[in-house]
Amino acid sequence: MSAPLFRLTDAQPTTELLAARQQHLRTELEKRRLPILVVSSPVNIFYLTGFHGTAGVALFDRFEAVVWVDPRYTLQARDQASGVEVIEARTGLFKAVGRRLKKRRARLAGYEDAHLSCAQFKNLERESPRTTRWQAAGGIVEELRMVKDSYETDRIRQAGHLTAEVLTEIIPGVRPGVRESDLAVELEYRMRRKGADGAAFETIVASGVRGALPHARASSKQLSARELVMFDLGAILAGYAADMTRTLYLGKPGLRVRNLHKAVVEAEREAVEAARHGARAGDVDGAARRSLKRRGLADHFTHSTGHGVGLEVHERPRLGRNEKTRLRAGFVVTAEPGIYLEGFGGVRVEDTVLVGTEGSPEILTPAPKEPWFIE
Amino acid sequence: MSAPLFRLTDAQPTTELLAARQQHLRTELEKRRLPILVVSSPVNIFYLTGFHGTAGVALFDRFEAVVWVDPRYTLQARDQASGVEVIEARTGLFKAVGRRLKKRRARLAGYEDAHLSCAQFKNLERESPRTTRWQAAGGIVEELRMVKDSYETDRIRQAGHLTAEVLTEIIPGVRPGVRESDLAVELEYRMRRKGADGAAFETIVASGVRGALPHARASSKQLSARELVMFDLGAILAGYAADMTRTLYLGKPGLRVRNLHKAVVEAEREAVEAARHGARAGDVDGAARRSLKRRGLADHFTHSTGHGVGLEVHERPRLGRNEKTRLRAGFVVTAEPGIYLEGFGGVRVEDTVLVGTEGSPEILTPAPKEPWFIE
Repeated sequence: MSAPLFRLTDAQPTTELLAARQQHLRTELEKRRLPILVVSSPVNIFYLTGFHGTAGVALFDRFEAVVWVDPRYTLQARDQASGVEVIEARTGLFKAVGRRLKKRRARLAGYEDAHLSCAQFKNLERESPRTTRWQAAGGIVEELRMVKDSYETDRIRQAGHLTAEVLTEIIPGVRPGVRESDLAVELEYRMRRKGADGAAFETIVASGVRGALPHARASSKQLSARELVMFDLGAILAGYAADMTRTLYLGKPGLRVRNLHKAVVEAEREAVEAARHGARAGDVDGAARRSLKRRGLADHFTHSTGHGVGLEVHERPRLGRNEKTRLRAGFVVTAEPGIYLEGFGGVRVEDTVLVGTEGSPEILTPAPKEPWFIE
Repeated sequence: MSAPLFRLTDAQPTTELLAARQQHLRTELEKRRLPILVVSSPVNIFYLTGFHGTAGVALFDRFEAVVWVDPRYTLQARDQASGVEVIEARTGLFKAVGRRLKKRRARLAGYEDAHLSCAQFKNLERESPRTTRWQAAGGIVEELRMVKDSYETDRIRQAGHLTAEVLTEIIPGVRPGVRESDLAVELEYRMRRKGADGAAFETIVASGVRGALPHARASSKQLSARELVMFDLGAILAGYAADMTRTLYLGKPGLRVRNLHKAVVEAEREAVEAARHGARAGDVDGAARRSLKRRGLADHFTHSTGHGVGLEVHERPRLGRNEKTRLRAGFVVTAEPGIYLEGFGGVRVEDTVLVGTEGSPEILTPAPKEPWFIE
C-alpha cells in the first residue's frame, strides 16, 4: 500500500478556522482577478479543507468549493472536510474537474504549476473545455500558509516540545562507542511512542569530522571521545513539523571548541531576536551572519539562516541573504546558523520559533543549550 | 534539513551493473530515435548512475552521460556515481543542462514528463536553446527497471526476509488490549534496528471491522479477542523495498473466518504460481480472481492483485484485470488478494515474489502463513 502523507489524528482544525482559510484564499484570488483555482497539492488541500489524503483535487471560486476524491477516500473526506462539497470521482479526478469547468463555462482557471507534473497537466487540459485558459498560479496557497493560525501554532508547539523532550531523554546514552544510526533510530522511536506521526525528516546524527559534511546523515560510525556530535531532528504531529539542532561535545572541550560553540549559540540567539513582526527575512539572516563575522567565522557559515516550518518542514519564507519578505506575527521559522570546518567538525544550533505581534519570538523547541559537553 | 530519498549504505551496485543499465537505456533511446534523454527523477538517477541524492539532473545520449549536482552533493556524487561525468552546478541544474544542449546543438531531447512539474519544465525550456525540441518520454527508465538484476534481487530479498523476521518476532505481543499503532511503531523500530533504512510505507495494522476499510491505517484502537488483525508492512534496505501482508485471528476462529482465511491463502498461492516468465500481468490477476470466484467471494476482492516492487514500493507493472505486460524473469511483483466485508473485517495475504526463468517464483517475504490464529 502506498504511504499516506498524514496519519489520521484526533486533532482537526475547526470549521471556523477552515472557513477563514478559504476566505483568505478567495480574497487572494479576487486580488489577482483569478476566478477559479484548481488545487492539486495534497498538503494545500489538507490546509484548505481538512481532508488528509493523497488522492484528491479541489476547486475554489468565489461561490463554491469542491473536493473530488477517489473512492478509497470518500468516507474519510466526508468525515474530515469542511466548507467544501465532497464528490467521489469514479472515472478520474481530472475528468471530474473538466466536467465542472464545462458546466461553469470557465474561461480562466489557475493551477498549481509547482505541484502538477507535465503529464498531469496535459491530462487536466485534455479533460477540460478548450475554451478554458489556464494560468500558472504559483504558490498562492503557500503564501497564505506563511501566517499560522492558533490551531497550527498549537500543533507546531506540541511537535517542538516533543522534539526537545526526546533529545533530552537520550542524552545519557550519548557516549563513546555508540553508533550514530542507533541514536537516530532511538530518537525516532521515542517520537512515535510519544504520539508523533513520525520524524519530519531523516534524523541527522553527525559526529567528529562528519559534522563538517554539508549533507551529513546518521551513519554506522561510532562516537568517539573528544568529538562534536550534531543532532538535527524534528517530530511531525497531526501533520505539523518542528525542526531543531543541538551540538554536543564528548569530553572536556578545549578553547577552540568552546569558542566555536559559543559563537554559534550567540549567532543563533541574535537571529532569533531579529525574527520579529515587520523585520525582513534577510534581516534575520544578516543578524546571524554579522554575529559570526565579529568572530571571524562568517566564511564557514555556508548556508542560509532558516526557513518557514509548518505542514512541511521546509516552507516559505526562506531566511537568506537579501530576502525581502516581511515577517509577520504568526510566522513560524527556524534560525539555524552553523559553522563547518573540513577535517575538524561542525557546530549548528537551531530552534523553531513563532513570531509574535511584539517582542521576542517564542522558542517552540525548548531543549536546553547548556550544558553542551558530556564529561 | 530535507529528507533524502535514500540512506547512504555500504551496498552499492557495481560499475559493471551500472554500465549494463546505461547500455540498456541507450538501446532503448536508439529504438525510439531519441538522441538525448534528460533524467530528473532522483530514483531513476540512482538506478542509472549509483548516485543517491535528491538534487541532481542527468543527461544520457549515445556517447556521453553527465550528472549535474548541487554543491551539497558533489563529494557524495563523485564517490557513488559510475559511468557518468559528475559536474557541480553552481548556478542551477537546468542552466547547466541548457548550456550542454547548446554546446551539443541538440535538436531533440526527451524529458521525464511524469517527474517534472510544469514550473520545472518551463524553467528547463527557458534555459535551453530555442532550437531544441522537447519530447515527453514517458517512463523509459521505469520500463527498464521492471527487470531486476542480481544486485537488486539480492537487496529486495534482504528487505523481504527482514520484513518477515520482524513480523514473526512481534507475534507474541499481538494480544487483546494492545493498540494497533503500538504494534506498527514496534515493527518499524525493529526494521531499523536490523539495518533497514526504515519502512517502505506506513505500516498498516488494522483490526476487527477496521480491516474492511479500503484505506485502513494503524490507529489507537486496541485489539480485541475474536478479531482479525491485518498487518501490511515492508522494510526498505539500501533503497530497495519489500511488501508483505499477513492476517491473524485472536482466538479460535469459527467456520466463517476459517473459510475466509483459507480462501485468501489459496487465492494468493494461485496468483503466486501464475507469476511466471511469459505470463501476462492480467493472468496473475485472473488466477486470484478465479480462485475467489469458486468460493463466491470475488465480489469482495475490490482491488488489483499486485504491482512491481523495487526502488519504489509501487512500480511497474500493475497486476490488474486485462493488463497485457508480459512478466519476464527478473520481475519482482506482489500477489495480494484480499476480501473486505463491511462491518465484519478483512483478510489479505501478500508476498513479494521474484519471477524466475522457469518454474514457480521465489517468495522473497517468507513469513509463515500458518498458524494464523493466536489462542
